[in-house]
Amino acid sequence: MERTHGGDWAAYEMEYGALPLDFSASISPLGLPEAARAAAAAALEHADRYPDPLCRRLRAALSEHHGVPAERIVCGAGAADLIDRLARTLRAKRALIPAPTFSEYERALRAAGSAVTRFPLAKETGFALPDAFSDAIGPGVELVFLCQPNNPTGLLTEPELTHRVLRRCAEVGAVLVADECFLDFAESPARYSLAAALAQWKNLVILKAFTKTYAMAGLRLGYALCGDAALAERLQGCGQPWAVSAPAEAAGRAALGDADYVLRLRKLLQAERPRVAEALTGLGFSVLPGAANYLLFYSADHALGEKLRCRGILLRDCADFPGLGAGWYRAAIRTRAENDALIRALREV
Amino acid sequence: MERTHGGDWAAYEMEYGALPLDFSASISPLGLPEAARAAAAAALEHADRYPDPLCRRLRAALSEHHGVPAERIVCGAGAADLIDRLARTLRAKRALIPAPTFSEYERALRAAGSAVTRFPLAKETGFALPDAFSDAIGPGVELVFLCQPNNPTGLLTEPELTHRVLRRCAEVGAVLVADECFLDFAESPARYSLAAALAQWKNLVILKAFTKTYAMAGLRLGYALCGDAALAERLQGCGQPWAVSAPAEAAGRAALGDADYVLRLRKLLQAERPRVAEALTGLGFSVLPGAANYLLFYSADHALGEKLRCRGILLRDCADFPGLGAGWYRAAIRTRAENDALIRALREV
Repeated sequence: MERTHGGDWAAYEMEYGALPLDFSASISPLGLPEAARAAAAAALEHADRYPDPLCRRLRAALSEHHGVPAERIVCGAGAADLIDRLARTLRAKRALIPAPTFSEYERALRAAGSAVTRFPLAKETGFALPDAFSDAIGPGVELVFLCQPNNPTGLLTEPELTHRVLRRCAEVGAVLVADECFLDFAESPARYSLAAALAQWKNLVILKAFTKTYAMAGLRLGYALCGDAALAERLQGCGQPWAVSAPAEAAGRAALGDADYVLRLRKLLQAERPRVAEALTGLGFSVLPGAANYLLFYSADHALGEKLRCRGILLRDCADFPGLGAGWYRAAIRTRAENDALIRALREV
Repeated sequence: MERTHGGDWAAYEMEYGALPLDFSASISPLGLPEAARAAAAAALEHADRYPDPLCRRLRAALSEHHGVPAERIVCGAGAADLIDRLARTLRAKRALIPAPTFSEYERALRAAGSAVTRFPLAKETGFALPDAFSDAIGPGVELVFLCQPNNPTGLLTEPELTHRVLRRCAEVGAVLVADECFLDFAESPARYSLAAALAQWKNLVILKAFTKTYAMAGLRLGYALCGDAALAERLQGCGQPWAVSAPAEAAGRAALGDADYVLRLRKLLQAERPRVAEALTGLGFSVLPGAANYLLFYSADHALGEKLRCRGILLRDCADFPGLGAGWYRAAIRTRAENDALIRALREV
């Protein structure tokens, strides 16, 4: 199988016999909250039981957290699981996605038999989503994926435009999936989230991931907030009954209780993101003004990724993103010391 | 969502505020092996990393365990995940399954758009799979599921017939999925397994589950052994990339190392299965001669399940299995003390 995602530390470990410093996966640098780790470990004591297929307790907690009725919340084994289930449940004849964006949308859509139209984001405007994206949502489009902030660019789309996209989707009868998995890393998530629109718009689905925000990629936990309870029920019924493991559900509930974690995370990123961006710019790379926990940059040296890999550091080589190409790399923002190690290594090569 | 499976302790807990004694899920009564629990807990320390999407280390261990090349092994989040992926990958126009059998085959097949033919097993012959099943595999059948021993009857099919079914599938160009998830609980697994045929028959897939054998239902881990490496690769590529969580993979590797566990398990079942069967018969129920870690029996009192539920004991009500009907119940074989509690409760109602 090809390497089409970041975070493939296992391949590195098999090659080098040691773990890399992984900037290729965009995960909270604070690690799994201790309460979540403890809850997952406690859940192992009862791992002989099937997990609750409906994640009733976690959905109740999420319902309170987001103010969304539990019957409009669906949990899955990471946001990737929900992307796959959305594509299979909706079976859109035609779907629209920006390019570049997270590759799982297109993979899942094509697997579900959807024709995928890529809306190219212009390099000249820094891959910002233009107003024209909304105009591209014409009759016949049944599903639109919009990543806020976008992956791998890190760029936020202004709420005026996301709302226009949402209205336009409603007009043509399309479902809008707003992937807000990286939004907790941005400075003003509430301003950019479409969550408030869920009460009004049945054609809206918002994706969230514990994976990234709470550094539990290994546990697999994400969820969808749906404007439409009927769609939530169809998503729940799609695929195997027990998608979410018992430790993941327990960890998710505990993580939600740690209100301080996300604040500390945002503070760290507030300090480190501009520092890393400045260092990368100083080294001659073209850096996009990302708002997430990663930065996309262009390097004239297209072998940069391989050179860092030899030094035990993984970047996400974005050459395989439609709309990007060789020389584009995505680097996660991690702790100060880890970021320093990255900058040092970049200086050396 | 309807209650269509056993093991829904969560619904019971919400209703009664306490956990039931669960005979509705058919899971090893010995609980998670301690080495597996410890390995899963250790994996939580690195849960911020994505799991290895290819489960390379677990597949290497399974390859050694089964003598099947790693490239023909696919891991998933429980056997249910692999059933779903098989149905979606093969997209059979027509599929054949016995009735009664595990309900996930039909659910997954219908979701994948397959027409499903149910081959009715006769109550008069104790739901044994007859030779005629093989004859029913005619041209046009592209996929056959065969559960060995069958769920929920617990009946084994003689190897002569399973081999005939396999050859017949090859003749008409059908894939045979032999679900051997419960075979480790039987007395002579090697005699009844089709594993030795994997080297020769490309159209064979064998399903196995850590879920049941090692009591890790909460962790979600199963795998498919494929006769055809190309099919294994297609299964691997179906659905989200990171189906297996890091704790599940770690627990699986540790469980494989505990060779004694399955022997102890079989010894316990060897003693308890006939004892429970005799007690059930003594109470006037019609009990099938099951070989797995559960027994299917018929009760003239069709409210038996509800009556036990009020007493904190869950049975699997099999009324919803096509081919069965009201009055059929499946009870897991658990530890001696737990089985005694079940028998006592049955005596009382």
